[in-house]
Amino acid sequence: MKLSNYFLPLKKEVPKDAEIISHILMIRAGMCQQSTSGIYSWLPFGKEVLDNIERITKNEMNLAGAVEILMPTIQSSEIWKESGRYNDYGKEMLRILDRNKRELLYGPTNEELVTEIFRTHVNSYKELPLNLYHVQWKFRDELRPRFGVMRGREFLMKDAYSFDIDQKQSIDSYNKMFVAYMQLFKKMGLKAIPMKAETGPIGGDMSHEFIIISNTGESEVYYDKNILKFENDLEDIDYKSNLKKIVDAYTSFYAATDEKHDPLKCKVGKNDLVKTKGIEVGHIFHFGQKYSNKMNAHVHDEHGSSVPVFMGSYGVGISRLVGAIIESSHDDKGIIWPKEVAPYFYNLINLNVENEECNILCLRIYEYMLSKNIKVLYDEKNESIGSKLARADLIGLPFQIIVGPRGLKEGLIEIKNRSSNKIEKIKPEELFNFVSLNKN
Amino acid sequence: MKLSNYFLPLKKEVPKDAEIISHILMIRAGMCQQSTSGIYSWLPFGKEVLDNIERITKNEMNLAGAVEILMPTIQSSEIWKESGRYNDYGKEMLRILDRNKRELLYGPTNEELVTEIFRTHVNSYKELPLNLYHVQWKFRDELRPRFGVMRGREFLMKDAYSFDIDQKQSIDSYNKMFVAYMQLFKKMGLKAIPMKAETGPIGGDMSHEFIIISNTGESEVYYDKNILKFENDLEDIDYKSNLKKIVDAYTSFYAATDEKHDPLKCKVGKNDLVKTKGIEVGHIFHFGQKYSNKMNAHVHDEHGSSVPVFMGSYGVGISRLVGAIIESSHDDKGIIWPKEVAPYFYNLINLNVENEECNILCLRIYEYMLSKNIKVLYDEKNESIGSKLARADLIGLPFQIIVGPRGLKEGLIEIKNRSSNKIEKIKPEELFNFVSLNKN
Repeated sequence: MKLSNYFLPLKKEVPKDAEIISHILMIRAGMCQQSTSGIYSWLPFGKEVLDNIERITKNEMNLAGAVEILMPTIQSSEIWKESGRYNDYGKEMLRILDRNKRELLYGPTNEELVTEIFRTHVNSYKELPLNLYHVQWKFRDELRPRFGVMRGREFLMKDAYSFDIDQKQSIDSYNKMFVAYMQLFKKMGLKAIPMKAETGPIGGDMSHEFIIISNTGESEVYYDKNILKFENDLEDIDYKSNLKKIVDAYTSFYAATDEKHDPLKCKVGKNDLVKTKGIEVGHIFHFGQKYSNKMNAHVHDEHGSSVPVFMGSYGVGISRLVGAIIESSHDDKGIIWPKEVAPYFYNLINLNVENEECNILCLRIYEYMLSKNIKVLYDEKNESIGSKLARADLIGLPFQIIVGPRGLKEGLIEIKNRSSNKIEKIKPEELFNFVSLNKN
Repeated sequence: MKLSNYFLPLKKEVPKDAEIISHILMIRAGMCQQSTSGIYSWLPFGKEVLDNIERITKNEMNLAGAVEILMPTIQSSEIWKESGRYNDYGKEMLRILDRNKRELLYGPTNEELVTEIFRTHVNSYKELPLNLYHVQWKFRDELRPRFGVMRGREFLMKDAYSFDIDQKQSIDSYNKMFVAYMQLFKKMGLKAIPMKAETGPIGGDMSHEFIIISNTGESEVYYDKNILKFENDLEDIDYKSNLKKIVDAYTSFYAATDEKHDPLKCKVGKNDLVKTKGIEVGHIFHFGQKYSNKMNAHVHDEHGSSVPVFMGSYGVGISRLVGAIIESSHDDKGIIWPKEVAPYFYNLINLNVENEECNILCLRIYEYMLSKNIKVLYDEKNESIGSKLARADLIGLPFQIIVGPRGLKEGLIEIKNRSSNKIEKIKPEELFNFVSLNKN
């Protein structure tokens, strides 16, 4: 993408309500724009990150055997009355009357709707296990929306729902999602910690939150620091195998959110226990027959008996992750995108677009990258060197390739690694080798 | 995808309100499910078609130089009061009060919101032309939702918005979208006809609808049948060139919707004039300064004067297209998917899963296709031959590969072309050659 064909409206001034760094950087880097309290438009640079997070999440869901559907944003109140949550949910639920005065609502979550789909079509254990997921906008009418896309009112969530014939199979499904979550966060370049958590309005007997450690997080969390050593055991998961061992390995370490933390039960030594703040980026629930009982979602088991199906639900905060990633990866100059979610891999910067030699070389690099399907943002704007380099640092693509007349006189161009901020001078012909080793 | 890992809940009985064939077939083929009046969930088979239509549309928008953003579904009433449409829009607009009694609405279209984004960031002609698009759910509270996803209340639309410094540049942008629409419908395997149309609540001085001819269409349309001859002139468009010639070539033929049809001005001979019904799948508008005037979206021109920007808007009915394609491509056995939008290219059917030879050959074919990234749905369910073949015809994937013990005795398998319904018997080893010639 050439910068002059793109829409990247950087801002120097940010609104007063932008309190945390991810919100400030998202506004400054032209990623989003608030349209009204807690409701945002995604500008191209933000949309591309959102898409990457969604793609990585969906890929892992598919690998884990979940099947993608798409439920609507607007739901009827009827199914919520069946489950008993229409009154329970309170003012966070955005309630709507249509032109015929029928009660609708903007879905804050989808347990009821997916249970209705399930009971319409499935009536035998032979069709289980089944896991249906979707990625759709949700709405929660927060009293005080804040922190930009991290606690907005309209937000994008991946939510999956498992259906099983009994408790044992249902726990297997829960474990599969637990492991899939560890995988997908890792594939986004993130270090998430699974923690015992409250079930809240979803309900159920077991729940884990997936937390990214960050000073600006809203949750207070406690964990045994040895859990972090476990991270690299998750390559090449076979989702058809039983994953209990992996889950047990994780859950053998103490890790709990504030509400679940119990100093009496916590046997972790002082030197190992970390108390810190974190951002919830995923939350999984096992709630057995809670909804299937109330909503009459029964299946026949192998003996012909009709039993309420066992369920769990599994959420990833897709839009929140954009903010969470920035919270955990930035410096005083701007964002530092993990390679996995960066909108572009390379930022090609032409320091002097009036110099023929710079133009020819940049165009050659640009077209080479396009031909190799390497994602590159080419800054060919006629602006000062200072503003070009500041922009590149602010938007934080993994590598900057800086081409200027002074360097070219010595036959050199620069590659800046945005993560280390180290600059390497190389000959232009060496770039093709570098690119073949470092690509998206 | 193996059928037993998929979720394809076929239905024999359809609800009474399913009047038209696309609605009936979408229910029977397990593509969608109504959750409440005019609001649908998309089941996996429907979701994949929806995704294909969205992908083809986005690709063409990107080729034409439009840049993707994502605006929210919920908007504030304020900007609609600025444009004057808050009262004009009537009961079709879904109006909402949040917990603080602020007036929100579920966007039926996005002229106001995109104009607000534009005026926040752009103030010079140097940043023009600009075309911003998104694909997002819209809501129109239809009095009588009907025809399934063809006239639902919650529907998916691609809407693009062009911004230009003057009328001439703005018409160039309109022409670019006109041609892009002809391209993208063609790339979906559709024959769309551009017709002069009313501008309705969007407003403006010029508008075209893109119509697919169908007996069940709601629009009455008139066109010179010679326009159909033009279809093949659209390969390899250079969107950087001026596309007026192509648009002029199309619009030189008479083609108008009912509202715009004027028997006095229509000079087409009786033998050439076709009067028929059609489905609107796209609609483009040129409305110049209508919104920029009211919403104060000004830019500086090259003389330093501040002028309201010139705009147009361009819609494709992504979810409606799923129904429209079925309306124009089916037979009495079921759907016939155009190759371009089919969820899977091949339907591999194992007629006897208890026969070792069938299983081995099918698995070899299946794994070969996966290794070549060819989209295949493998029916390995233990069901009767009759129900397997009926299902295959109903879901209408382009090619069926039928493997059964009787054929294998003669060393043959069958390939059925769902479009012609012709069956070819070939040797298994010939299949690999067939597949290399016929792939998605």
